[in-house]
Amino acid sequence: MFSKEVYQRRRQTLLGKMRAQGQQGLILFIGNAEAPAQYKDNCYKWRQDSSWLYFFGLDEPLMAAILDIEAGSETLFADDVDIDDIIWMGPQPSVRSKADAAGVAHTAPYGGLGSAVALAVKSGRPVHFLPPSRYFNTLKLGQLLPGAKPSEALIKAVVSMRLIKEDIEIEALDHACDLGIAMHSVARDAIVPGIIEQDIVGKMEGVALAKGWGVSFPTILTQHGETLHNHLHDKVIEPGKLMVIDAGVESNEHYASDFTRTYPTTGKFTQKQREIYQIVYECNELAFSLCKPGITYREVHLATARKMLEGLAALDLVRGDLDQMVAEGIAGLFQPHGLGHNMGLDVHDMEDLGENLVGYDPDQTRARQLGLGSLRMARRLCPGHVITDEPGIYFIPALIEKFKKEGLGKDFVNYAKLESYYDFGGIRLEDDVLITADGARRLGHGRLPIAPDGVEAAMAK
Amino acid sequence: MFSKEVYQRRRQTLLGKMRAQGQQGLILFIGNAEAPAQYKDNCYKWRQDSSWLYFFGLDEPLMAAILDIEAGSETLFADDVDIDDIIWMGPQPSVRSKADAAGVAHTAPYGGLGSAVALAVKSGRPVHFLPPSRYFNTLKLGQLLPGAKPSEALIKAVVSMRLIKEDIEIEALDHACDLGIAMHSVARDAIVPGIIEQDIVGKMEGVALAKGWGVSFPTILTQHGETLHNHLHDKVIEPGKLMVIDAGVESNEHYASDFTRTYPTTGKFTQKQREIYQIVYECNELAFSLCKPGITYREVHLATARKMLEGLAALDLVRGDLDQMVAEGIAGLFQPHGLGHNMGLDVHDMEDLGENLVGYDPDQTRARQLGLGSLRMARRLCPGHVITDEPGIYFIPALIEKFKKEGLGKDFVNYAKLESYYDFGGIRLEDDVLITADGARRLGHGRLPIAPDGVEAAMAK
Repeated sequence: MFSKEVYQRRRQTLLGKMRAQGQQGLILFIGNAEAPAQYKDNCYKWRQDSSWLYFFGLDEPLMAAILDIEAGSETLFADDVDIDDIIWMGPQPSVRSKADAAGVAHTAPYGGLGSAVALAVKSGRPVHFLPPSRYFNTLKLGQLLPGAKPSEALIKAVVSMRLIKEDIEIEALDHACDLGIAMHSVARDAIVPGIIEQDIVGKMEGVALAKGWGVSFPTILTQHGETLHNHLHDKVIEPGKLMVIDAGVESNEHYASDFTRTYPTTGKFTQKQREIYQIVYECNELAFSLCKPGITYREVHLATARKMLEGLAALDLVRGDLDQMVAEGIAGLFQPHGLGHNMGLDVHDMEDLGENLVGYDPDQTRARQLGLGSLRMARRLCPGHVITDEPGIYFIPALIEKFKKEGLGKDFVNYAKLESYYDFGGIRLEDDVLITADGARRLGHGRLPIAPDGVEAAMAK
Repeated sequence: MFSKEVYQRRRQTLLGKMRAQGQQGLILFIGNAEAPAQYKDNCYKWRQDSSWLYFFGLDEPLMAAILDIEAGSETLFADDVDIDDIIWMGPQPSVRSKADAAGVAHTAPYGGLGSAVALAVKSGRPVHFLPPSRYFNTLKLGQLLPGAKPSEALIKAVVSMRLIKEDIEIEALDHACDLGIAMHSVARDAIVPGIIEQDIVGKMEGVALAKGWGVSFPTILTQHGETLHNHLHDKVIEPGKLMVIDAGVESNEHYASDFTRTYPTTGKFTQKQREIYQIVYECNELAFSLCKPGITYREVHLATARKMLEGLAALDLVRGDLDQMVAEGIAGLFQPHGLGHNMGLDVHDMEDLGENLVGYDPDQTRARQLGLGSLRMARRLCPGHVITDEPGIYFIPALIEKFKKEGLGKDFVNYAKLESYYDFGGIRLEDDVLITADGARRLGHGRLPIAPDGVEAAMAK
């Protein structure tokens, strides 16, 4: 964890923002509990709540805290261990020393949380809390504050802080990206026709666990890139296919990375693969080149959509006026997702707090079009934003058939030619980008090979 | 999954057992939902509920089923996918075809579960369900059957079936154990002073993910074996220490393995380490040699406790009458856990159904003594039982000091000499054992080196 001053400063800033919004009462933070996989003593790997990590840093289960907006006082709720705990977990620091590490003045037993909340409710004071990210927190909040709704004022204040990464966070993100690059390199080198996809997944996730907390999200590794979130890895790697690997490492400090590369399984792109790959590559490069303070990421998304359609038009897969196709959302047929999302302590940063409050400025409305409607980050870019740049082109037979049947895009889409792409799969290329004072830089030291020749050269090694 | 006949037969047996207990009404099974780690779209690796797997085999989230005890009818509740799902997850089999795979006659939408349960409640029919193993299931049951308690009749019927492994399960467990042995071998070969423990954990868990579903429980890998469940792996490996590795693989078929070995970090035991190791090794061998139908595992536990005290007496760490020491629970100071537990689809099989109903025969009462009181499996052994054999000796300063201060075991324990073991750590040695018609066999093909010389030889390679 960072020094206690970091957490104290953040909480002071948060209290200031709540006061500036005219808010009163308490702010309640509930840290995570262990998440049972099969029974209460066999849990998934421990992962603390991200907002808790941001404001307190304490990386242990069953903690909560209350900040008093008017009084400015802070209390950590947690329990000291007993002899049984020592047998099972070894000697543990006291709650007092944990509170000191986070710079919190007061401590109380975890069980005291209920009466502290009840007292506030009884005296009519609002209790602000964030949306629960797990079923445990939903249950806990249901006990503490039955029927209560998360506080939009609190969400907005937290989002405004976590969206703009501090220097210590950027350092942590660079590190997570270095680990992500290392993991992806191992994966790329492991691609050999004839083995099972799961063999590669194990190898790469082993790197994530050896050097970091594990993967930052369930690994996507598939020869069916047109299936956007494929978590089965039971297929034999076949020659001539495209392998999409979308994966990231969470560092031991709990910051995420998120990269996607697409590889020809035999190390060489076919002509057809290279044509589509080149378009996606150019979209990735274009997006990065446009990233700078002042432009909205919605605009960047639409610029890459235009570029994509331009490339597809050159292959005669679409026809017509580019601007009109962009406006009608034709790119969504090929890329039914957004260009990117915020990244930080979560790989989709703060998605538990609500996609629109996180990714959209107050003056922006989320589109309903396929593709643009899935854009998770649309905001006007500011220094300190960390976003992914991940264009993709997919040929999804079920989606194409649906469009065709409903007559969608019939003035633009060359459905006849598209049929010859039904077994193509998909391509996605993703980097992680920090917005700087006058532009942007890619996170991590070095970059995974991405230009088609560079990919082939890396695979030839 | 197995053939549909397997699941049909199991459900028929279950219905028969419920009827034989005079039970009526419905049996409600609720499969797991995805478990969010940070937000609803970033989940932990999918893991189905084990009892659901046992009776239905369908390995997907958001399914439920109702069996009618009187009518014998069966209904699977699940939803077919829509076009959005196809974009994200690819084409999926229909609910109907899934029901066919599990041999279930009727299907209904997942949302129909509420009215089906409500109808039974309204007409006064009991609804039997198992204890929820996750917070999601707790929430779901709270909605469906507010205030209702799990059915002990159902628990007993399910336990009686899952306790005795079928041949297809034994094959699956042998496979899981082979994977566990492979993973442990990689770990053993990776032990080198100077590296971080986490490096080994990543390597071994990579094997679990490449060849199986992952680890069957959070890996214990520690130079502080006296801490029984240590999940931090941030220490540098130091020469001259003992490294306890307690870890298992869950196979892709979701059966568990669970092995423990203890290695000298430099490849050679010191004299002092070898003395204690030899005792634990002999306890492990003794337990296995006693395993056969008819004996209770409580008796086996106590026999190893006696053996352990005998060895410790030879080192002058305890003194006095062995039987009296066994009776007074002196072994618990050194091994504050039980000799073993059931293993199957869960590494502590069915622990969500209640330790005592799973591990104790109706005529057995759980002891309260340290050590014996933690024994998870005490039953009279039967062919088809799968259990772990995991004696250990630990020198836990906080526990020894507590005993000493409270005058516990003062007639037997040589506290003065024990002080020289405060930095010793701990040793545990664990195999997985199948009870056969006339004895027992260790699961997995081959056995991880365990005799002190064998361990040193394996580490010298």
